[in-house]
Amino acid sequence: MQLPSTLLENAVAEFAKLPGIGKKTALRLVLHLLKQEQDVTNNFSEVLKKMRKEIQFCQKCYNISDGTICSICANSGRQKNTICVVENIRDVIAIENTQQFNGTYHVLGGIISPLDGIGPEQLTIEALIDRVKKDKVTELVFALNPNIQGDTTIYYIQKKLGPSTCMITTIARGIAFGGELEYADEMTLGKSISNRQPIHQYIK
Amino acid sequence: MQLPSTLLENAVAEFAKLPGIGKKTALRLVLHLLKQEQDVTNNFSEVLKKMRKEIQFCQKCYNISDGTICSICANSGRQKNTICVVENIRDVIAIENTQQFNGTYHVLGGIISPLDGIGPEQLTIEALIDRVKKDKVTELVFALNPNIQGDTTIYYIQKKLGPSTCMITTIARGIAFGGELEYADEMTLGKSISNRQPIHQYIK
Repeated sequence: MQLPSTLLENAVAEFAKLPGIGKKTALRLVLHLLKQEQDVTNNFSEVLKKMRKEIQFCQKCYNISDGTICSICANSGRQKNTICVVENIRDVIAIENTQQFNGTYHVLGGIISPLDGIGPEQLTIEALIDRVKKDKVTELVFALNPNIQGDTTIYYIQKKLGPSTCMITTIARGIAFGGELEYADEMTLGKSISNRQPIHQYIK
Repeated sequence: MQLPSTLLENAVAEFAKLPGIGKKTALRLVLHLLKQEQDVTNNFSEVLKKMRKEIQFCQKCYNISDGTICSICANSGRQKNTICVVENIRDVIAIENTQQFNGTYHVLGGIISPLDGIGPEQLTIEALIDRVKKDKVTELVFALNPNIQGDTTIYYIQKKLGPSTCMITTIARGIAFGGELEYADEMTLGKSISNRQPIHQYIK
């Protein structure tokens, strides 16, 4: 695709660097900005720059934060002795949206994956171990994706923690609400049978 | 969706203003920028601002241009007496990519559409009429979308032009290459039969 201007070409190239945005979509976005007043583009640029410059990560849980401690860690109503361990910030947002968890979080920043060159030292595992000891944490809820890397990460943290009174749990795996039994994979269906639960949990 | 930071929230809102980008995609893009170095975001912002500030429209054809005259109008190898009339800049890029047209363009900036409040005076029709007269244009090729607004626009320009030696043509409508006859709509199939062409055009 040849474009009639290098300014346009550069702008399209910048947009196309973003994940999931191809050259055609990028062109559509740039032409949209061109149609708007100049202020719209200036504002867009300034907000992004300010965000990237000023955003911080919570010193306790490594969640995104406006200050040094995020609003969840700073909230006295949240249980500090229950920590949900997640891979990234998007997982925190997803779990927060369920309104089912009243503890705090710990964002690992990834999971152990030697093939991608990610070892334990690149993650915030050390800080998590410190928190467990310092805050007298009674439960670590692992909400990692159910694959070999997730399991490796849980195993590594468990080993690193050593003998402890802290309970270690993981989010339940099973058939999704609205899911059809016959289309579920064998692994999930098998787990959902072996981990079957008394019915009164659902009838509250 | 509640986000843990107002800086993040503002950036997501800005991205979500772009066409075809929802809040979830916007969040993915912003988190991507957060993962990169600060320079990446700064560069992205600066390129956009510079583009919006410095980009110009060709004074002849209203195509996007780095200077006052675009590269197509400035190219002495292009036929100045053949003008392809299009709705917007994206159409110019699409036709240029076919490498089948060696004339120049005229970007109307829209089509006449009273329902959307777009009248002839908001388009560059006056300038087109001037060009036809001044450049002794021998052919106007209309490459507008085949709908009532497109036809109205062609009709209006024809009337405005008055009696002229300039030939007026429109791009061919018919069954697309790779299209299936039986799935074509009646209008297109009908047109493709009434405008049938001698076979030697295809065997060159």
